[in-house]
Amino acid sequence: MKTVPDWITQLDTPYLLIDEAKLKNNISYLKQRVELLGSHLRPHLKTLRTIEAAEYLLDSSDAPATVSTLAEAEAYAKAGYTNLLYAVGIAPAKLKRVAALRRQGIRLHILLDNLTQAQAVTDFANQFRQDFSVFIEIDSDDHRGGIKPKDPQLVAIAKTLGSHFTGLMTHAGGSYVCSNDEALRAFAKQECQAVLDAKNQLNEVGIHCSVTSVGSTPTAHFGEDFSDISEVRAGVYMTFDLVMKNIGVCDFSDIAMSVVTTVIGHNKEKNWLLTDSGWMALSRDRGTTGQKQDFGYGQVCKTDDSLLEGLCVNSTSQEHGIIELSDAYQLENFPVGHQLRILPNHACATAAMHPVYHVLMSDGSHNTWQRITGW
Amino acid sequence: MKTVPDWITQLDTPYLLIDEAKLKNNISYLKQRVELLGSHLRPHLKTLRTIEAAEYLLDSSDAPATVSTLAEAEAYAKAGYTNLLYAVGIAPAKLKRVAALRRQGIRLHILLDNLTQAQAVTDFANQFRQDFSVFIEIDSDDHRGGIKPKDPQLVAIAKTLGSHFTGLMTHAGGSYVCSNDEALRAFAKQECQAVLDAKNQLNEVGIHCSVTSVGSTPTAHFGEDFSDISEVRAGVYMTFDLVMKNIGVCDFSDIAMSVVTTVIGHNKEKNWLLTDSGWMALSRDRGTTGQKQDFGYGQVCKTDDSLLEGLCVNSTSQEHGIIELSDAYQLENFPVGHQLRILPNHACATAAMHPVYHVLMSDGSHNTWQRITGW
Repeated sequence: MKTVPDWITQLDTPYLLIDEAKLKNNISYLKQRVELLGSHLRPHLKTLRTIEAAEYLLDSSDAPATVSTLAEAEAYAKAGYTNLLYAVGIAPAKLKRVAALRRQGIRLHILLDNLTQAQAVTDFANQFRQDFSVFIEIDSDDHRGGIKPKDPQLVAIAKTLGSHFTGLMTHAGGSYVCSNDEALRAFAKQECQAVLDAKNQLNEVGIHCSVTSVGSTPTAHFGEDFSDISEVRAGVYMTFDLVMKNIGVCDFSDIAMSVVTTVIGHNKEKNWLLTDSGWMALSRDRGTTGQKQDFGYGQVCKTDDSLLEGLCVNSTSQEHGIIELSDAYQLENFPVGHQLRILPNHACATAAMHPVYHVLMSDGSHNTWQRITGW
Repeated sequence: MKTVPDWITQLDTPYLLIDEAKLKNNISYLKQRVELLGSHLRPHLKTLRTIEAAEYLLDSSDAPATVSTLAEAEAYAKAGYTNLLYAVGIAPAKLKRVAALRRQGIRLHILLDNLTQAQAVTDFANQFRQDFSVFIEIDSDDHRGGIKPKDPQLVAIAKTLGSHFTGLMTHAGGSYVCSNDEALRAFAKQECQAVLDAKNQLNEVGIHCSVTSVGSTPTAHFGEDFSDISEVRAGVYMTFDLVMKNIGVCDFSDIAMSVVTTVIGHNKEKNWLLTDSGWMALSRDRGTTGQKQDFGYGQVCKTDDSLLEGLCVNSTSQEHGIIELSDAYQLENFPVGHQLRILPNHACATAAMHPVYHVLMSDGSHNTWQRITGW
């Protein structure tokens, strides 16, 4: 067993642990990769939603970043970050908050995919003499929102936006169902092609598109050429998780997030460990169901981070986890009070359950990061 | 359409809405029911984890209550509540925090089901001259923790605890898989029988058990006789949810919690509404899968609370929900900006995603309640 700093096993469980060394490694790898392939990263801050993590992800206060809520935009703006894409289709009622941030000098970009939203933006802009910066969402894989690249409505939306139009973005969320490298490379290509097709459509009618934005963690890691694209977005890559391991984007040892838990009981008949980490600590996310390997509610590791092969959290209630031991393990080796680490299915979902993260710094010391909550 | 107060549609979405009138009704119904059947409620505060809700649930500062974390115990103690059962098996390392509360005069009861825990309690008690109040968990339905009522270890645990032993508790979490009244009545009976059998075993060796505690929302609503039992626990009954609707414990109209959401786009080919409520607002809980009716990520209602039959949130990502319209509905009736309410699968899980709850008071006014977070 590797030695771990004392504080790791002295904090009250359950708690969320971030491994700084792994986080840094994941962040620098993708940054370098995307730059080598001719583009720039616009990291998605939604995975951790902490000011502290932004310091690792963003080199300067005007470095491009992505957020999933206006609460994040407001918090990062307050911390000094000025170039933020709010990557969820704008509800017209939220334009007030967007405008307030823009008046503070924040380049907050918003997203939309239909004429109603575009008209609402223009109406607000005219009424309050407020400029906006708008990305139009392109649907590159039929999985969620966006307008098809060759849909003629695209021109109408861009024209309605007029000077508020900035760029085109797409997110290949569909790439999460891929499980081989070839399919992922194809998805990455398809993502780029979609925004380029959309850009061409606009060019043909003389509308200039200054930014093209693509990305998801799988496609950012498998794309082979981003030289025609302004920016690549990815979020979960900073910590990775079991879903990404199953897709083939990372290995277990890259996963920089775990939940530390304590054994609180046994069921000897059933060979169960009962722990104090239920879905409140692990989240209800079951994203590895239907993937190559189903990890239940998470993969079990020792507190030193080494994998206990074949051990998962098999079921949870609010504050209880059940780990069913396979024949390879004996209950006696996991006495009451024994601690374990659980790797998450989905880092964004697990982090969302924790108002505070505990960080194992590269030098072994202990830091805490506060999560930005709400909308 | 019923009229709703203006503020309901003026807050930024997504947000969690509690209906005070329904909450009060659910709370008073079960209180009266359990008292008529000869026992008392020890409400589980874990569903909402707010000081404000405790005021509805507890008649006095020393009324019995249940919590799922020490963070709740500490917060409710600070608010003046003095009789709290922490109903998750105690990790020995947490005894320090338990002792700190007991020294403040809080009757904080703890739970355990094995000799290691009992010995840890006794050792701590002796070392620090600290008295504890301990419930032993009885396994009444093979679903999670606890010791079997007739297991001779029960005597050994109680003897180890000595003067720290207070009572016996069981939780028939297995009742959640029932879907007919007869099965629920049988489960309630089985829960009571389990603690009574355990009490008898202790009586036979001269160990007095002063409290017997049973309960889950389904069994509390279907039990026919609690006259031999000191107290009944239930939590989710205060707001109910779709899982409880499927079990047959409540109707849609009893559900006192919903998430208010805004339509942000359409997919016309697929007849989809895109909304701003993803799993971050609704939770990843899919508790109605495998039940009588699968509600996806939640049942869709109008903002006035009336049901849109057959409409569910079919899929979610972090901040997006997709509602697939059936043939009975037209996209045009749900324009961008239109608001809807989503009833939750599992109220405890959905509430966990919201640091603040918005409360529709019986007089139409608006209140906010803060959630107690962490462990």
